[in-house]
Amino acid sequence: MSIPGDAVSIVGIGMLPVLRTHVQGLRHLGAEAVHKAMADAGVDHADALFVGNMLADELQGQKHLATLIADEAGLYGIEALQVRAATATGAAALRMAYLAVASGQAEVAIALGVEKMSSHRDQVVAALAKALDAELEVPTGATLLSQNAKLMALYLERYGRSITDFDGFALNAHANANHNPFALFHDRTVTATQVDDSPVVSAPLRLHDAAPICDGAAAVVLTRTGQARSFTDRPVRMLGASVVTDRFRIADRADPLHLAASARSVREAFRRANVHRSDIGLFEVHDAFSIMSCLILEATGFAAPGEGWRMAAEGRIRLDGDLPVSTMGGLKARGHPIGASAIYQTCEIVQQLTGRAGVNQLADPRVALLQSVGGAGGTVLTHIFGT
Amino acid sequence: MSIPGDAVSIVGIGMLPVLRTHVQGLRHLGAEAVHKAMADAGVDHADALFVGNMLADELQGQKHLATLIADEAGLYGIEALQVRAATATGAAALRMAYLAVASGQAEVAIALGVEKMSSHRDQVVAALAKALDAELEVPTGATLLSQNAKLMALYLERYGRSITDFDGFALNAHANANHNPFALFHDRTVTATQVDDSPVVSAPLRLHDAAPICDGAAAVVLTRTGQARSFTDRPVRMLGASVVTDRFRIADRADPLHLAASARSVREAFRRANVHRSDIGLFEVHDAFSIMSCLILEATGFAAPGEGWRMAAEGRIRLDGDLPVSTMGGLKARGHPIGASAIYQTCEIVQQLTGRAGVNQLADPRVALLQSVGGAGGTVLTHIFGT
Repeated sequence: MSIPGDAVSIVGIGMLPVLRTHVQGLRHLGAEAVHKAMADAGVDHADALFVGNMLADELQGQKHLATLIADEAGLYGIEALQVRAATATGAAALRMAYLAVASGQAEVAIALGVEKMSSHRDQVVAALAKALDAELEVPTGATLLSQNAKLMALYLERYGRSITDFDGFALNAHANANHNPFALFHDRTVTATQVDDSPVVSAPLRLHDAAPICDGAAAVVLTRTGQARSFTDRPVRMLGASVVTDRFRIADRADPLHLAASARSVREAFRRANVHRSDIGLFEVHDAFSIMSCLILEATGFAAPGEGWRMAAEGRIRLDGDLPVSTMGGLKARGHPIGASAIYQTCEIVQQLTGRAGVNQLADPRVALLQSVGGAGGTVLTHIFGT
Repeated sequence: MSIPGDAVSIVGIGMLPVLRTHVQGLRHLGAEAVHKAMADAGVDHADALFVGNMLADELQGQKHLATLIADEAGLYGIEALQVRAATATGAAALRMAYLAVASGQAEVAIALGVEKMSSHRDQVVAALAKALDAELEVPTGATLLSQNAKLMALYLERYGRSITDFDGFALNAHANANHNPFALFHDRTVTATQVDDSPVVSAPLRLHDAAPICDGAAAVVLTRTGQARSFTDRPVRMLGASVVTDRFRIADRADPLHLAASARSVREAFRRANVHRSDIGLFEVHDAFSIMSCLILEATGFAAPGEGWRMAAEGRIRLDGDLPVSTMGGLKARGHPIGASAIYQTCEIVQQLTGRAGVNQLADPRVALLQSVGGAGGTVLTHIFGT
């Protein structure tokens, strides 16, 4: 078979505002985001719905989510399945919708990410820790926060840096979220002093080194590129994608500070999309933790090892920099409703590539990069988009 | 795009014996089934692994399972994602592996189903109930068992039948499991008296109307049909598939005893595979409950409404009947390790279609049907296979 890498395009997006607490339940958030994306695409039907959600098993007691949301959205009858890749789950939903369209099994497919973390706030940390090894890591007290704190401590030690060298990531994210109406932290100015003075949540990580717990839902509508213009005059092509895994546990990796799956995944996606690093006009990274942003910039080759933080410190990741990152606020300031995050990022990439990013609009981006990280780097999904 | 319906074939299968309790942990069961399937296909590499599992969140505290198993199997680096559709989860993994190969994104893809229900036996019923509506059904005390009991009670009332009319399903399953070395209940004869005398577990359902809780893992290797014969001289083609959802709650359906998603899914799969009901040489049904087998036979048109039980009572579903069902023991007697069940069924279909079914071998089956039910009929996946 010879299916071109860009056989699939996005023709509609839909986002709900990310909030600390949404009044609506999980199914309603999901259905509303689906409806918004369908309205944007101008469709009243879809063949398939792929739902990304990580925490409903524990927080809502729900394990049959895709069909529940399809029903709530009035779409019962269609194919509906749930997919997951820990904290990269939203990207897994996008991946599946892509496969469904590229395989010819669906004409119109929807990828939905939805997460409601406010339901049982006390259980969120433990539920998130199930992204780690339940037998070999969790019993030692490990959480996603503690794993990232360990990586940060290693990084500061190896490269002789200070935690304040990482302030640029939070400052950039908040500056960009400021003008994004869907962001958790919009209309909020955050200063370097506030970042530096924020409480340590897991040494050496400060509150501002971590993304917040919140509720959100976002969806995108996919169809074949060949017919995309019958839906919209501004389709966005999915140029290439790659999913790569690493050794599961950080302890089993040759170098904990090298995200091997990130490096290999971006290389493979570049090859499939036939684009080069220099083509990338914006990069939506998995900035759940500032150290993760830094390690991703290094693994993907945009910065040398030990130099990723500098891209933030020197303003190169800002909207006016040479590699804009987290252009609508990122996981850090738009918010990180886990299973929804990568779909929000996809929607934001579509906004940027189609001139709909408002105050944050980049000049003329042609190619955008999205990378999503499951757990502590065990699963990495890369997607590349173009006009 | 014009991808033929039978673009994908199965070139390897691997099963572990279904046991009440496997000593090995979840990841080891998964890795071992993957290795067995790869050995059967003669491959030492795969591009993608799609894992079906329903209960690890609760029973093993694990939400990042696909990558964990890829690592344990020595396959880290490959694409690995987890998929689910409640009790039809194994079929969802098969669906995803099919999409990955059909889309050209993977040359060799593995679908794995794995479930270890023995870890926390006391939590299994509550975890399974999360396949139902957590807000509108579970608070009323509903479980999968109670929902099926309700359907059975309705059926008996509407059609004036007795519960003993359903004995044929258990008898057929146990007779077939008797000679399947991978079955939970092999080497065990079950008589009509034993079925009739088995304790009522949720009136009117008796113990022998329900599939057992157990541990198991099974895997299949998929590749493009065009290159399948370079792996094996006995490939099995995936002729067509369809995933269809219904209203989520039984209470919202026009007729609780009509599985609309089952009917529509099989119709659509027949159309895609270009086969007819009369072509079907064996039917692996979702016999988690005897009433579900009966309703599936009716929804798929093999029996008229109110007559499905008769196919079992009259021996028509036996190995020597006109529509052999649960040919290796089914969920009822081979066992129902939830996320693994449909992959076991796929392996058994491959055994039947390639002459490897041993004592239970059917004469000359050409086309086989598999149908998997998520929850109480909310999600139905149909797969059709041929030589």
